[in-house]
Amino acid sequence: MGSDFGPRPVVAGALEFLAEDRGREYRLTLVGDRKKIETELARHRAADGNFEIAPASEVVAMGESPSEAVKKKDSSIAVAARLVREGQADAWLSGGNTGAVMASALLTLGRLEGVSRPAIAIVFPTVKSPAMLLDVGANAECKPVHLEQFGLMGAIYYSYVFKQPDPAVGLLSIGEEPTKGNELVLAGHKLLSESGLNFIGNVEGRDVMAGDCQVIVTDGFTGNVILKFAEGLYGFLAKKIRHQISTNVFSRFAVFLLAPFLRRLKKTLDYAEYGGAPLLGVNGVTVICHGGSSSRAIKNGIKLAATMFRARVNEHIQEKLAGWKEID
Amino acid sequence: MGSDFGPRPVVAGALEFLAEDRGREYRLTLVGDRKKIETELARHRAADGNFEIAPASEVVAMGESPSEAVKKKDSSIAVAARLVREGQADAWLSGGNTGAVMASALLTLGRLEGVSRPAIAIVFPTVKSPAMLLDVGANAECKPVHLEQFGLMGAIYYSYVFKQPDPAVGLLSIGEEPTKGNELVLAGHKLLSESGLNFIGNVEGRDVMAGDCQVIVTDGFTGNVILKFAEGLYGFLAKKIRHQISTNVFSRFAVFLLAPFLRRLKKTLDYAEYGGAPLLGVNGVTVICHGGSSSRAIKNGIKLAATMFRARVNEHIQEKLAGWKEID
Repeated sequence: MGSDFGPRPVVAGALEFLAEDRGREYRLTLVGDRKKIETELARHRAADGNFEIAPASEVVAMGESPSEAVKKKDSSIAVAARLVREGQADAWLSGGNTGAVMASALLTLGRLEGVSRPAIAIVFPTVKSPAMLLDVGANAECKPVHLEQFGLMGAIYYSYVFKQPDPAVGLLSIGEEPTKGNELVLAGHKLLSESGLNFIGNVEGRDVMAGDCQVIVTDGFTGNVILKFAEGLYGFLAKKIRHQISTNVFSRFAVFLLAPFLRRLKKTLDYAEYGGAPLLGVNGVTVICHGGSSSRAIKNGIKLAATMFRARVNEHIQEKLAGWKEID
Repeated sequence: MGSDFGPRPVVAGALEFLAEDRGREYRLTLVGDRKKIETELARHRAADGNFEIAPASEVVAMGESPSEAVKKKDSSIAVAARLVREGQADAWLSGGNTGAVMASALLTLGRLEGVSRPAIAIVFPTVKSPAMLLDVGANAECKPVHLEQFGLMGAIYYSYVFKQPDPAVGLLSIGEEPTKGNELVLAGHKLLSESGLNFIGNVEGRDVMAGDCQVIVTDGFTGNVILKFAEGLYGFLAKKIRHQISTNVFSRFAVFLLAPFLRRLKKTLDYAEYGGAPLLGVNGVTVICHGGSSSRAIKNGIKLAATMFRARVNEHIQEKLAGWKEID
């Protein structure tokens, strides 16, 4: 039960999710410090409901290294991963330390057969169809075959979750021609061309938000830099807008009129609105939420985890990749 | 005399620059098809002025490969580079094919002594001090020592052009700790730590626009992806805003009131406002302008080239790096 703001937004998000679940199809397990969780539940007068509490006594700090974090066998992250491994839960999500979530997923759940490297995928809204970018941070160093697997996993996720078969897959590079890019991309381009995917070739940074390419493959270093750059750019815009409001009475009025638009824009630029990022390739539905997630982001993260489970994304990835031999 | 829109914005930008040059300190040479340039000059009724025309009969297309382009010895790019080599001009800029400009600069002007790889630098505005990012596309594949040299060249440029000695230099990575990043970044971090620069360590994507780090070092692949992602994001915002204007009369009114702010925002996000990107490390002041440059961007590019020449940026780089042995 972690997030930058403790259990509060997580409990609130869980309750929002259950409130919308009119058929009572889902049962949630809240993992963490029982007392803190009960305090939060009491705030919402939700002593009873379609949920239970699994206690976890240890806490993984946000700055803790993954190798240190996984030693804490009774952290909420470790307990939640075990619930999935033991079949007591179908999916899990956390707004806690991302490295620790990845490490626990790998250690406790393991990889799907044939998958070399699990990848974190995020979805950017665009003016056309949503654009999925992966990997955004699980693998700082990649080999060409990892890029190919990211393309396969991303296309499967996209086609089942967004119900759009055969999505266009592009490889992020610095020019459209197959000869443009670094060595990793040149070799990855060749593999993706022969992968059977609807591979449209290299795409550039400006294509990410254009919406013509549904699945954009990149190494975890480049993907993470872009993700965080986009976050930083939103912060920059927000500051500019606040500054504007404070300096001019006309623009203050204008901002008032534009408020609904600005709220929508914030939602659009805030990838957490899509409910976090699936960790694809591990043997159990795992969703990583932003540490600063709002209750709505948590609610959407739970929705995403449920959708991913119902769409049998992992089974489809397994089917596709099981025959692959292990590559380091 | 190239740009996506032919010589029109280039000639207009040159005349705007000269109009502001009240001391008649500068003399411009317009390089390209004489007839077309004269037609543009006639539109502005500027038959005479502090400029001359250097004819160039060939044209490098935007999609042409650099190796093909450099064969055209009488393109405006080739002629302009020669004018600098022969001392008939102190600096040059082009909004033409970027690869061709780089190739001509390297072939005709050569590298400054000790420089392994010239780098393209761009400047992002932030809410604090401008942030310089390099390399943004000259080198898709880099070695650690190239990153160190980018840091040195960037810091020299920043300190002389922005008159801020000892700027903070950061290395773009996926975590602040020196252990975070790919192999290139880990090795580059070590070299930069020992470089004598005011090296503040790793910075993340979100730090680019935060304004606390003045010079941000990255390989040309990652830098180019970010640059184009930022361009794409502006296009996305502009579309969203236009859509908003067309759907709602209140927000149309709001946008009218906010127009000055939106114009400033566009300027802020439009790196061309800073007048293009210097190619650092070649033996002659070279500025690369965006193909879609407005006349104002061209004017600012000329200003930037003039500032870079006057600040003796190349001499300072030479002084710093001349002792370095050549590395591939």
